[in-house]
Amino acid sequence: MTTALTAGNPRCSIARSLEVLGEKWTLLIVREAFWGRTRFAQFRERLGVAPDVLADRLTTLVEVGVFERRAYRADGEREREEYVLTDEGRALLPVLAALAQWGDDYRPTGFGAAAEYRETASGRPLRVAFVDADGREVADEAVTVVRGPGALPVPAAS
Amino acid sequence: MTTALTAGNPRCSIARSLEVLGEKWTLLIVREAFWGRTRFAQFRERLGVAPDVLADRLTTLVEVGVFERRAYRADGEREREEYVLTDEGRALLPVLAALAQWGDDYRPTGFGAAAEYRETASGRPLRVAFVDADGREVADEAVTVVRGPGALPVPAAS
Repeated sequence: MTTALTAGNPRCSIARSLEVLGEKWTLLIVREAFWGRTRFAQFRERLGVAPDVLADRLTTLVEVGVFERRAYRADGEREREEYVLTDEGRALLPVLAALAQWGDDYRPTGFGAAAEYRETASGRPLRVAFVDADGREVADEAVTVVRGPGALPVPAAS
Repeated sequence: MTTALTAGNPRCSIARSLEVLGEKWTLLIVREAFWGRTRFAQFRERLGVAPDVLADRLTTLVEVGVFERRAYRADGEREREEYVLTDEGRALLPVLAALAQWGDDYRPTGFGAAAEYRETASGRPLRVAFVDADGREVADEAVTVVRGPGALPVPAAS
């Protein structure tokens, strides 16, 4: 994990998120978890990631609370560990969906979306968007970023 | 830019997005652009990033169409280049907001959010969420990821 990303602004929650999530492979490991993979061998096989890198990423994801490590034993096998998304990990679904949406819109493969986000009960297709307090969509073009209560004081001039 | 992230599934739009956005510093450069920074010196000063890394990231972001490079000349100065978000770049706002939201929820600083997303016209606070075709919010817990038309065929058994 690096700390340099937060050098410019230690209170920026994008930088703090990226300290964990910005490591190569991490978000793809979380992606696989949403497809139901829980085992080291499954992540490794699906991603083609080097085992030492995968082990490092999983350790970090457990440390920060995205995954919970659980012991399990399949019939006739030795006890192994599996990695299960916590509530904190499941809260990453909009991050993955937002990245997927941007990729589908601006880096399309020509085959259509590889994954779709749907309402479980109805099967209706969903998108990620800004919403107001009443849960109604607001178009991106109508959104402004403003300084929040945790913003650092503005430097004198720059 | 790396291609290894797409080794497991070249059609995954998360992996394709991360090929560009997953490089260290890239999303923070885009964050600064949403705060109105356009100049190399501004990005460098705000982020504390090494100049050669910043130059590399900006070149990639221009190549993929997130930034447009424009010439400008301030009074009495030599001509310089500035970097302006394109429509493709501005479409990254939900990605940044989703990362910020997760960071504020799960890696809080204790100072509150450093940035807030608001409706420009009304100042109302906004969040990022799943919405249906009518623009109405659907809770994360009610969302499932399913294979889309671009999904690769499922391997025989794994």
